[in-house]
Amino acid sequence: MATLGDIGVAATINILSAFAFLSAFAILRIQPINDRVYFPKWYLKGLRSSPLQTGTLVSKFVNLDFRSYLRFLSWMPAALQMPEPELIDHAGLDSAVYLRIYLIGLKIFIPIACLGFAVMVPVNWTNKTLEHSKLKYSNIDLLSISNVPLGSNRFWTHLVMAYVFTFWTCYVLKREYEIVAAMRLHFLASEHRRPDQFTVLVRNVPPDPDESVTQLVEHFFLVNHPDHYLTHQVVNNANKLSELVNKKKKMQNWLDFYQLKYSRNPARKPSTKTGFLGLWGKTVDAIDFYTSKIETLKKEISLEKDKVMSSGKSVIPAAFVSFKTRWGASVCAQTQQTRNPTLWLTDWAPEPRDVYWDNLAIPFVSLTIRRLIIFVAYFFLTFFFMIPIAIVQSLANIEGIEKALPFLRPIIEVIPKTIGTSIPMKATFFITYIMVDGWAGVAGEILRLKPLIVYHLKNFFLVKTEKDREEAMDPGTVGFNTGEPQIQLYFLLGLVYAVVTPFLLPFIIVFFALAFVVYRHQVINVYNQEYESAAAFWPDVHGRIITALIVSQLLLMGLLSTKEAAQSTPLLITLPILTIWFHRFCKGRYEPAFVRYPLQEAMMKDTLERAREPNLNLKSFLQIAYIHPVFKEVEECESDPASEESDQEPVLIPTKRQSRMNTPLPSKHSGSMTSLG
Amino acid sequence: MATLGDIGVAATINILSAFAFLSAFAILRIQPINDRVYFPKWYLKGLRSSPLQTGTLVSKFVNLDFRSYLRFLSWMPAALQMPEPELIDHAGLDSAVYLRIYLIGLKIFIPIACLGFAVMVPVNWTNKTLEHSKLKYSNIDLLSISNVPLGSNRFWTHLVMAYVFTFWTCYVLKREYEIVAAMRLHFLASEHRRPDQFTVLVRNVPPDPDESVTQLVEHFFLVNHPDHYLTHQVVNNANKLSELVNKKKKMQNWLDFYQLKYSRNPARKPSTKTGFLGLWGKTVDAIDFYTSKIETLKKEISLEKDKVMSSGKSVIPAAFVSFKTRWGASVCAQTQQTRNPTLWLTDWAPEPRDVYWDNLAIPFVSLTIRRLIIFVAYFFLTFFFMIPIAIVQSLANIEGIEKALPFLRPIIEVIPKTIGTSIPMKATFFITYIMVDGWAGVAGEILRLKPLIVYHLKNFFLVKTEKDREEAMDPGTVGFNTGEPQIQLYFLLGLVYAVVTPFLLPFIIVFFALAFVVYRHQVINVYNQEYESAAAFWPDVHGRIITALIVSQLLLMGLLSTKEAAQSTPLLITLPILTIWFHRFCKGRYEPAFVRYPLQEAMMKDTLERAREPNLNLKSFLQIAYIHPVFKEVEECESDPASEESDQEPVLIPTKRQSRMNTPLPSKHSGSMTSLG
Repeated sequence: MATLGDIGVAATINILSAFAFLSAFAILRIQPINDRVYFPKWYLKGLRSSPLQTGTLVSKFVNLDFRSYLRFLSWMPAALQMPEPELIDHAGLDSAVYLRIYLIGLKIFIPIACLGFAVMVPVNWTNKTLEHSKLKYSNIDLLSISNVPLGSNRFWTHLVMAYVFTFWTCYVLKREYEIVAAMRLHFLASEHRRPDQFTVLVRNVPPDPDESVTQLVEHFFLVNHPDHYLTHQVVNNANKLSELVNKKKKMQNWLDFYQLKYSRNPARKPSTKTGFLGLWGKTVDAIDFYTSKIETLKKEISLEKDKVMSSGKSVIPAAFVSFKTRWGASVCAQTQQTRNPTLWLTDWAPEPRDVYWDNLAIPFVSLTIRRLIIFVAYFFLTFFFMIPIAIVQSLANIEGIEKALPFLRPIIEVIPKTIGTSIPMKATFFITYIMVDGWAGVAGEILRLKPLIVYHLKNFFLVKTEKDREEAMDPGTVGFNTGEPQIQLYFLLGLVYAVVTPFLLPFIIVFFALAFVVYRHQVINVYNQEYESAAAFWPDVHGRIITALIVSQLLLMGLLSTKEAAQSTPLLITLPILTIWFHRFCKGRYEPAFVRYPLQEAMMKDTLERAREPNLNLKSFLQIAYIHPVFKEVEECESDPASEESDQEPVLIPTKRQSRMNTPLPSKHSGSMTSLG
Repeated sequence: MATLGDIGVAATINILSAFAFLSAFAILRIQPINDRVYFPKWYLKGLRSSPLQTGTLVSKFVNLDFRSYLRFLSWMPAALQMPEPELIDHAGLDSAVYLRIYLIGLKIFIPIACLGFAVMVPVNWTNKTLEHSKLKYSNIDLLSISNVPLGSNRFWTHLVMAYVFTFWTCYVLKREYEIVAAMRLHFLASEHRRPDQFTVLVRNVPPDPDESVTQLVEHFFLVNHPDHYLTHQVVNNANKLSELVNKKKKMQNWLDFYQLKYSRNPARKPSTKTGFLGLWGKTVDAIDFYTSKIETLKKEISLEKDKVMSSGKSVIPAAFVSFKTRWGASVCAQTQQTRNPTLWLTDWAPEPRDVYWDNLAIPFVSLTIRRLIIFVAYFFLTFFFMIPIAIVQSLANIEGIEKALPFLRPIIEVIPKTIGTSIPMKATFFITYIMVDGWAGVAGEILRLKPLIVYHLKNFFLVKTEKDREEAMDPGTVGFNTGEPQIQLYFLLGLVYAVVTPFLLPFIIVFFALAFVVYRHQVINVYNQEYESAAAFWPDVHGRIITALIVSQLLLMGLLSTKEAAQSTPLLITLPILTIWFHRFCKGRYEPAFVRYPLQEAMMKDTLERAREPNLNLKSFLQIAYIHPVFKEVEECESDPASEESDQEPVLIPTKRQSRMNTPLPSKHSGSMTSLG
């Protein structure tokens, strides 16, 4: 068990390392040579084309303006300055809403921490339980629930606080759900015309002996949506074609590599071996070898493409069906088409860039079986993982106590009272964890050490054209998939320890504040959103925080019952019930905004559009929107064989800033660019 | 603990009483005087107008054809003869599907019982655990899992059987869901034109300062469903009017009573007191008193009716909106209308007779709060009910064991190994329960003792006209609300004991068989369905059997772990997981057929109708379909003040039998009428 001194040492180390990361970042980011690593977003949006510094050769690589080093934390206020509507314009709604999760953390935990310190700390501290026991304890444990004697009336304070904290959390969550739902609806309403607004993805088209899939789809929708059906696009299983295209791309890369090598050292023609990884086999001229390989692949691709396009066999029983109006699409997406609810399944089409084409080809039966397998595997993973962890954990605790107090052995060896002391005493471990993972980790995120090194390596060895450089600096999207679970862990910790050991809360608050600033900076300057779900993930975020809240309530219940405060159990049981009810209420009230598209909104947009553009040719707009991207790639490559294929054209999100394209002067609120002025 | 002998005695008593009920029924039902008690359905449908016996005065009341007494069980095959499609025509789909629940019981438990007796009984019986223990046990316990020694390898048999039983149950459930879904869709497809096919109930119309509810509804649907909206009917809060009408009805009853009294004994004019329940106050002439009361009420009703009809204040924010096509109604019912998912809620309208008008007036906030209160109350009821029951139960068991084995006291007093013996040993209790509640209870149901007495009393004292007689014999609907939970208890018992004590299964099978025959007879001859939900309750039935299955699996898991067969736990845990997955699969595959109305079906019916009746005036058909029934009553009573008001006009369900109306000869399959031929 760590003492207050140990925690102090850990805090010092972590604060120093976080500080070191931030300083390194502050210095590295203002070097023109790193500009594309720390501000790729602006390059990708076309708002910046070269470092802002101009002058001597040296100053093209190194920043010589020493005043800028003094303002080394100036990026923080800069990151906070851009107002939210502009942020949504700049980085999309998903990113803006993602940042709100960190804000929620602050909104929930700052008042809870204040109340916790004002009420719980005195209540816990003014006992002598740990002092009189012979348990090993640290100064922090004196502030925790462990220090309250068994069966004390003081537990009523914890009970009341659990209620207060739950109500506050629910209040914040409800307000936030309301705001995010409104933001989403506003965002959807103000969006420009996009193919997915008119389109529905139809899956499980039943096989028909007389008609092909495309005929069947057309007939079905002409009959059942006669006034609204416009056109459709069947889905081809082009997985083999994609594979060939990818293979060709890899070969092209090798060819480029050897050509570059040759151009740098024209004296020696590069050679390679034909076997596995070029390690054995016949030695051949590398450039000739890869050129001929690419030629063969090109022929294969052309053949495969004709095969996919002409024969009906590669058509899978799914189609993107487009309607004349948003109203028609909205109706089709929300209704059941036929008696058998597993046929003619209709869902909103995702936007074209968001379609995962390979998986569209998986048949329904296979999907069902895959789901079952994952379900069973997930269960057993959790189940068998939980058992050893629980055993090891409890042994570790019991051993620790047994060593200190050998006479307790017979009592301890009966499987349940340790929870009352072990959970609160784990707090010191989690405090250290938060400092390492939360503080130093987030500070490390902003430094982008790995992308920095990779970019410079690529830039030095591989980059030939401006397009290559753009690819080398592509930062990808912000890591929802790793960031969100991390946040959820902190919510869980914060809610569990809010009543038990409020001393942990300030550490969490520092994490949320730091992460908010850092990720806001990253979203503005670094990450580039690939597609826009319009915050469709929010119900999950909400649900997980609710789960954390319920877990914290159940743990408190168990804890108080081991503390012989069982008379409070009925009152504590009410808490999760109220929380579940609150969740159901929110689900009914706000979730539909995230899964359905109200007819009124659709009708409004349709009517406006009809009035503004009476002669719009929607069919031409929709007809090729949902063609498998590999066909486009193949066509591009056929028309321009020398160019490299990029996976996706970076489609620009319309922005108010277009008029200022390439202007070297930063805008008033353009994030950290102000510090370079 | 009951021995085999005790069970034998109980069985004899119950079989005899069931037999007595059945004999009494057989005799009573063929007496012409009871004809209207045992065959009311045929009278209400207009297929029978007087007992079939004709002849002397005596034979109008008593059956003198002694041959018919000999065939006293002939109603059983007769009840089984009517084929299901005819039964649906005759009694509606709800009743026909309700009977299928009993059939499922037979389909599940007969094969399970066969397998259980063939495999489990020998495996359990050929042990000597109970013989060698000093526990009190009965012969039945020798056939149960209690008789298998701790940690025996024989438990693998129980495990394998648990799998087999689960798969069989799921197979039967799936097939049945499939059949019922098909029956429902077929029924809906072949239905005649009904107002609810075109109508949607809209709730939570938002308040508007400028427009009344009716204007708002009209404008909203003209804008958002321009091609489909036809007409609408706002809902009035006529609760006060209904109250007045009911009060008047009660007064009318008293008036009728005193008038009858006077007509039988013209010498003495009946009098009453004006105070509470006629117990004190001024003595007045009863007929004059009630006549004047009724006159006052009539005026009040007329005033209240004008108030409700003219002022907008009684209009509640809900409306029945009708569409030009079934397609339009289907679309509106399945989609979300506006941004705020708690406004403009649309659902399929129930059929007019199925609307519970009083509750339509409850505002949304009040509804939400009521739901919360019920949720909390339900939880605490279960929670606090469970604790004392569990304590009493366990104490009862432990005491029994402690008395027999005083040296076990220290071990027993640790509250968990008893489950391994107590659950199986409870079987004898449940066997007795099944015989009393299931066998004798169901036999009692067919006797209809209470309705028989009530009918004769009413007939003797109150009935004046044919309409009165019809009201007196009205049997109401079959008791879904009490019958279904009873069935579920038997499913739970059967599934729990299938592996543990298969000896219990034959008793359950007898219950299901007897109940099936009895209720089929009752549905054909007695109960009169008020409205038709087209088997909308099936997903609940399915879900509850699944719950019973999971409970049985969890109990088996607990039981085997106390029997030190813990190595089987992972395999047993898989069972509920697979069952839950099966439930989800069924939910996805079949449930939509019960909650949504596929567009294809709607379109098909619309197209057919348009072709057959191109000049149909749908508006006149729909305009008054959803008027509050109290208005109709008031109008009737205004036009014909002497007549009594009936709550509902008995709307005839169209039947193939109309041509034979009032024919005294029974049809080939007309249920028990054959026995009267």
